[in-house]
Amino acid sequence: MKSDVLISLESEVLLLDGAMGTKLQQEDLETDTAPEVWNLKRPEIIKQIHQDYLAAGSQIIQTNTFGANRIKLGEYGLAQEVEEINRAAVRIAKEVKKDNYIAGSVGPFGKFLAPIGDVTFEEAIDIFKEQIAILVDSGVDLISLETMSSLQELRAAVIAAKEVSDNVPVMAQMTFDENLRTLSGTTPKIAAVVLDALGADIIGANCSLGPQGLLDVLKELNQVTDKPLIVQPNAGLPKIIDGETVYQKSPEEMTTYIKKFVAEGANIIGGCCGTTEDHIAAFAQGLQGLTPSKSKLTRNFRLASRSQLMELSDQSESLIIGERINPSGKERLAEELKNNSFKVVQQEINSQIKTGAKVLDINVGGAGIDEVEMMKNVVQKVQNTSRVPVCIDTTDVESLEAGLEAFTGKALINSVTGEEESLNRVLPLAKKYGAALVCLTLDEDGIPDTAEGRLEIARKIKNKAISYGIPPEDLLIDTLVLTASTKQAEVVETLNAIKLVKEELGLKTVLGVSNVSYGLPQKPLLNRTFLAMALGYGLDAYIVDPLDEALQKTILAGDVLINRDQNAAKYIDALGQQKVTQDRKVNDKEEDKDVEKTDLSDKKQNQNDKSLELV
Amino acid sequence: MKSDVLISLESEVLLLDGAMGTKLQQEDLETDTAPEVWNLKRPEIIKQIHQDYLAAGSQIIQTNTFGANRIKLGEYGLAQEVEEINRAAVRIAKEVKKDNYIAGSVGPFGKFLAPIGDVTFEEAIDIFKEQIAILVDSGVDLISLETMSSLQELRAAVIAAKEVSDNVPVMAQMTFDENLRTLSGTTPKIAAVVLDALGADIIGANCSLGPQGLLDVLKELNQVTDKPLIVQPNAGLPKIIDGETVYQKSPEEMTTYIKKFVAEGANIIGGCCGTTEDHIAAFAQGLQGLTPSKSKLTRNFRLASRSQLMELSDQSESLIIGERINPSGKERLAEELKNNSFKVVQQEINSQIKTGAKVLDINVGGAGIDEVEMMKNVVQKVQNTSRVPVCIDTTDVESLEAGLEAFTGKALINSVTGEEESLNRVLPLAKKYGAALVCLTLDEDGIPDTAEGRLEIARKIKNKAISYGIPPEDLLIDTLVLTASTKQAEVVETLNAIKLVKEELGLKTVLGVSNVSYGLPQKPLLNRTFLAMALGYGLDAYIVDPLDEALQKTILAGDVLINRDQNAAKYIDALGQQKVTQDRKVNDKEEDKDVEKTDLSDKKQNQNDKSLELV
Ligand SMILES: [Zn+2]
Ligand SMILES: [Zn+2]
Ligand SMILES: [Zn+2]
Repeated sequence: MKSDVLISLESEVLLLDGAMGTKLQQEDLETDTAPEVWNLKRPEIIKQIHQDYLAAGSQIIQTNTFGANRIKLGEYGLAQEVEEINRAAVRIAKEVKKDNYIAGSVGPFGKFLAPIGDVTFEEAIDIFKEQIAILVDSGVDLISLETMSSLQELRAAVIAAKEVSDNVPVMAQMTFDENLRTLSGTTPKIAAVVLDALGADIIGANCSLGPQGLLDVLKELNQVTDKPLIVQPNAGLPKIIDGETVYQKSPEEMTTYIKKFVAEGANIIGGCCGTTEDHIAAFAQGLQGLTPSKSKLTRNFRLASRSQLMELSDQSESLIIGERINPSGKERLAEELKNNSFKVVQQEINSQIKTGAKVLDINVGGAGIDEVEMMKNVVQKVQNTSRVPVCIDTTDVESLEAGLEAFTGKALINSVTGEEESLNRVLPLAKKYGAALVCLTLDEDGIPDTAEGRLEIARKIKNKAISYGIPPEDLLIDTLVLTASTKQAEVVETLNAIKLVKEELGLKTVLGVSNVSYGLPQKPLLNRTFLAMALGYGLDAYIVDPLDEALQKTILAGDVLINRDQNAAKYIDALGQQKVTQDRKVNDKEEDKDVEKTDLSDKKQNQNDKSLELV
Repeated sequence: MKSDVLISLESEVLLLDGAMGTKLQQEDLETDTAPEVWNLKRPEIIKQIHQDYLAAGSQIIQTNTFGANRIKLGEYGLAQEVEEINRAAVRIAKEVKKDNYIAGSVGPFGKFLAPIGDVTFEEAIDIFKEQIAILVDSGVDLISLETMSSLQELRAAVIAAKEVSDNVPVMAQMTFDENLRTLSGTTPKIAAVVLDALGADIIGANCSLGPQGLLDVLKELNQVTDKPLIVQPNAGLPKIIDGETVYQKSPEEMTTYIKKFVAEGANIIGGCCGTTEDHIAAFAQGLQGLTPSKSKLTRNFRLASRSQLMELSDQSESLIIGERINPSGKERLAEELKNNSFKVVQQEINSQIKTGAKVLDINVGGAGIDEVEMMKNVVQKVQNTSRVPVCIDTTDVESLEAGLEAFTGKALINSVTGEEESLNRVLPLAKKYGAALVCLTLDEDGIPDTAEGRLEIARKIKNKAISYGIPPEDLLIDTLVLTASTKQAEVVETLNAIKLVKEELGLKTVLGVSNVSYGLPQKPLLNRTFLAMALGYGLDAYIVDPLDEALQKTILAGDVLINRDQNAAKYIDALGQQKVTQDRKVNDKEEDKDVEKTDLSDKKQNQNDKSLELV
């Protein structure tokens, strides 16, 4: 059931409150204790602040609980007071409540997560769950996760909030530096994609950049999510004048941004550090007559690492998922994984990205390998030494969850099938960790011979995913390549199924092509020929060996032919300089042959770097 | 309107008569004059022979006009008597006519046609037209072209008969040697394909081989045409015993074949040399209770040279049409053609066939080239030095007709379009010369942007072709490749159109793929990638450069993937021995790469030779 707040947002832009900390400073309260202590010691002051904001026009007020988690309070010896402080904060807010909503404020606990810091992802979820459960139990209308500068910490917070309650909406707000990035390179778009997938109900940013900076952030958010957006700008950067902290943006100046915020999709507007009831009152004036802008966004398939966004649309180039991190048939890799060594893995990461892989499949299953531990380690290896999203390839649910926890971003799961057991085990994890899915069109009866049979399984998976709240655009349907040497007549069914899935279900498709050539000579030739056919049918993504240069060239050509490489820009960039200029008069036989060997690596790297800059 | 004879054939097997010559010999008539002279000198004998056959049960009798053409009669100084002799023959037959049919017998004139002999193809048509026009005008019910051992001469005779009359059915019968071939290598299947395309109403063989040999011939005919079939076996080979010509097959022995003939599709049965009214009476007994077997033939796209059949079915490998005999962009070839030199042409013939071309496109248009003369010459060059059918590629109608005349077989015309002018000029020539057609899906408004637009033009061409009596399986629809550099978004429409044309119209498709890469680097890469896509959509044939080895390999792989190369037999034969056996342990990067250069030529040649043997 949709909460009242979310229903309100459909028709109006809601006004939040301003700063709590700024107001407390104005009250000259001691700053050597946790600001949340005043909920217990001076509740009347907190109450007055809420009342001032309500009087100014706030429709949502935020509890004085920003740092009321056991880590932050623990810094003041108050780790045991988490419950009392949070309950008091909500109680105070409730005492002044009229027709407004109460948002439980939840800030970062301010420690690095593992592997840099000591706090594991599970512990982080636990810390947030403790605070949020109290806030929800005390009766807040929504949860305001704010001023988060670590995407991984915010992921933990959103997961925690969603585990605590399905019904209380979650606002997930990050804070960015002047380059519109976090310290670890997360952009507003990346944050929005990851938060959207995690199920955050309202997405936004607060603090730090002032109104112009947050307007820029908002524009980016608005390009990748159609969720309601929130902004809480601070009043510019503070200056110390005559020993006083003074914020530079006046209510009037900040109010000039209200219309722009709404135009860029802001559905909740408030103020952060330096803003007071004067700002809020001015915002209320500015908001008069404004209604929310409806998002016109097309929700595309998107993945993200913490510092790179990967988008797959009907117009974008087709997606290369590198398959080489897989010990099956690779004895050296298998041996190293058994010995917890990562030299080959690192080589495979580097070489695949160099040759154009946009996502890396990680499969670490094999005899003698601790798959759970190894999945976590390899995911870390990938995200610490590259910027591509991962595809977690395992049939082991624990290994899958370990990988999803470890990956700071929106990962791809490989795979779920149409089997009930698979759906029931994998879809909840995809939902919880905000991952996209490779969906194999097989079920308890195996792989249907016909395209229609595979379409029906795809339809079943789609419906089940929707019932779990997983948006269908996060599904990549694998219509399953059969082996030409044993199922020759059915090879074309895989192609037909691509078309059916796209046309009937509107879903994107993926194939692992190499199966087609099993048992036949010259496998790469069959693989790339089949890939070309599949591209002709509209295949969107494929799990392949990106080090296969001939395959790479087929992909480049294929993307030109299916209009995914507009004006052949990438093709010409990669291959144009190798144009043959032999004298036609001398020998007609050789005209137009692309006889030279091509090293795509450098070109690819350039391309890769360019796309990084776009994020 | 269907003639009475053809209507009769639907429900009964008609009995023809036996030999005329054998009977005349029995009458001890002088043999130093033309046998047809007796129509004038001893009509009562001819009349008696007819009466004997009718009494024995013949439902069709053949006039005594086998050699009554101006060449044969000319050998006896009777060239001026063609009309009188033929008219007399029909008159005699009519005098004994009851409810039987009269077939006007037309044999060969027995001279080699150009370029071996002096008689041009046009003269040959003229000679046959002269005789046939008299027979038709005199009132025969059908024309019996018989004992023809030259396919080119029989082509002229069928064309002549069809030009004389649309309504009088034509029986076209060849005669073969013990290898079931003619001197120039024409097999029964080839003959049937060519005669069927020329519009012969009844197809068959007579004389020479005796009943067992003609049964073997009949089986072959029955595999490639669903037209009514005719056999007229001779009574075995004659022996001279006591100075008398004696035939060895008794009526009883020959009659044992009647049931087999009918089972293999014979719809008209008679006797040739050595058979008499005794044979016919026995045949009549043998035929009692037998009805025609219905042909279950699937009419496929077929071309033929005089010694090689080319069939394109849904199961056969896709069809490579070699494009290299085309002076555009080939200065050396253009220069030679201007100087009536054929060295480069000969190289292109040899190299393309060696690398697997199954049909050779011939385009000799260009400044300074006499296109009509050159088309004739190059067609001769191809058919004198190879066995592949030709594709006559010209927009000049005279050049087209010159090529069609010169080619002894069933050629492919490149091309007709949906433009009224093109349809009205090209379709009559295709019909007359029994040629298949490449049909371009463009019309007066140019090339439609959409697949549906091209489908509609294909439908129009199909209907128009049918109205001309051209069977739809002889059409190859070219859905027209646009240039990716200028029409990138429409490239996929060509692919969609392939599917639509095949599904909606049941027609075969062809593309000239090289246009797709115009203006872009690495054209062969784009060409072969596009070809793979098109094969995935079911493309049946393509006009390409067969010397492009990478393209060849794509075709080999593509035919495996679309199940046209059953069990990958051809693929493995061509590429299997080049399987890479590198040590995987040493370097995973290189596993399964087909790095070696491949010379397909020899493999192709083997393949080609094998398919020749099948004819
Ligand atoms: Zn704030
Ligand atoms: Zn702030
Ligand atoms: Zn004979």
